[in-house]
Amino acid sequence: MPNPTAAMLVIGDEILSGRTRDANMHHLAVELAGVGIDLKEVRIVSDDHDAIVAAVNALRAARDTVFTSGGIGPTHDDITADAIAAAFGAHIDVRDDARAILQAHYDRNGTELNEARLRMARIPDGADLIDNPVSAAPGFTMENVHVMAGVPAIFAAMVATILPTLTGGAPLQSRAVRIEMPEGDIAGPLNALAKRFPDLTIGSYPFQGQGGSGSNIVLRGHDASLIDAAASELIAELGGIPA
Amino acid sequence: MPNPTAAMLVIGDEILSGRTRDANMHHLAVELAGVGIDLKEVRIVSDDHDAIVAAVNALRAARDTVFTSGGIGPTHDDITADAIAAAFGAHIDVRDDARAILQAHYDRNGTELNEARLRMARIPDGADLIDNPVSAAPGFTMENVHVMAGVPAIFAAMVATILPTLTGGAPLQSRAVRIEMPEGDIAGPLNALAKRFPDLTIGSYPFQGQGGSGSNIVLRGHDASLIDAAASELIAELGGIPA
Repeated sequence: MPNPTAAMLVIGDEILSGRTRDANMHHLAVELAGVGIDLKEVRIVSDDHDAIVAAVNALRAARDTVFTSGGIGPTHDDITADAIAAAFGAHIDVRDDARAILQAHYDRNGTELNEARLRMARIPDGADLIDNPVSAAPGFTMENVHVMAGVPAIFAAMVATILPTLTGGAPLQSRAVRIEMPEGDIAGPLNALAKRFPDLTIGSYPFQGQGGSGSNIVLRGHDASLIDAAASELIAELGGIPA
Repeated sequence: MPNPTAAMLVIGDEILSGRTRDANMHHLAVELAGVGIDLKEVRIVSDDHDAIVAAVNALRAARDTVFTSGGIGPTHDDITADAIAAAFGAHIDVRDDARAILQAHYDRNGTELNEARLRMARIPDGADLIDNPVSAAPGFTMENVHVMAGVPAIFAAMVATILPTLTGGAPLQSRAVRIEMPEGDIAGPLNALAKRFPDLTIGSYPFQGQGGSGSNIVLRGHDASLIDAAASELIAELGGIPA
């Protein structure tokens, strides 16, 4: 049975303008690989209502699960929750359960739950809240879309909450073999290897080393014995070194 | 006049599996901001023919310019050139001009231009070649789509070749102001500021500092005097510090 598939939507002008390097995508990619959910596509869009709505609707139709990051804070540029509601045609307003979580948090800190902070309690009808152990303001799950914060520590905490609730597949396993020959010299044998192991994904990632150019060959798949067999062939045939 | 728009398509299983962190997106974002081309969307797809074709066709219709990275090497997993040809309905085969470039390069190095390396001379009919000063194998431009290598040094060299040929707009300018107050306390005034300066994009990026939480407010736009005026208001009204 093929693994479940996922997509990610990163929302934020700061990534597209080059101000910030996104860190959440890499984190999610590693976590999903570990539980056997295949991340098939990532989109990064700006803080633009229509762009978010279109991307969410395309991705949730195409993949089993969608993860979003960014745009659920208290400021005017945080428009993700309303865009998700629009994508689902759902009503959205301040919800009592989310408000209670924020109220308790700010009461503990002696901080006012003002109008801006109350924006973080805007949750679409029908969504389930995702716990935020860092700063209380919840994410939410709307059908197969998990809406999470962009701040990396909070994003990671929310992913840790969500992942155990999803049905994964066979975890993606991989082995790398380093070959001290240019890609162009090994491409033929590598192509033949890929044909002998159709259930593996075999990637070639060239590098420039001190002794000239080489390539890291990464064997990926769900069956460790197949990966080991392919690695052994690479090592025997092309003088590869386990990397 | 609004700035020209761009999209980027990153092609590569290695990014989606979490093995590699993409560096090209951030590089391109910074370069485009400098010449006044607005990067509106990035997609990352796997080494999958249909996924590449669909993404290229969606992006080239929606944006003025599209940049792709990855998948133009000599190995079996390098399928980008053929996918681009399919997206345009163009014929593709080894082209004499690209073959001559490779032949000259490998002759200089005393390396055989074998069948695998010849794959890198597969260029769609009608495309213009993009010079590769690092390892010779060219990228190419097909209408508004620039197809470039994934290796960061080569990608950067190709971007440097392409950018001067594009018509840019007003370079995106920005200033950051650091405010030592939680986002929830400044969101109201910030929203009012955004309404007073509709031509600016005002982003709020929270951080946790030693003295508690604060936020970096980034003012972006094409008119430096507007940005300076908004920054002065932020500094006067909320005690911000130029960051």
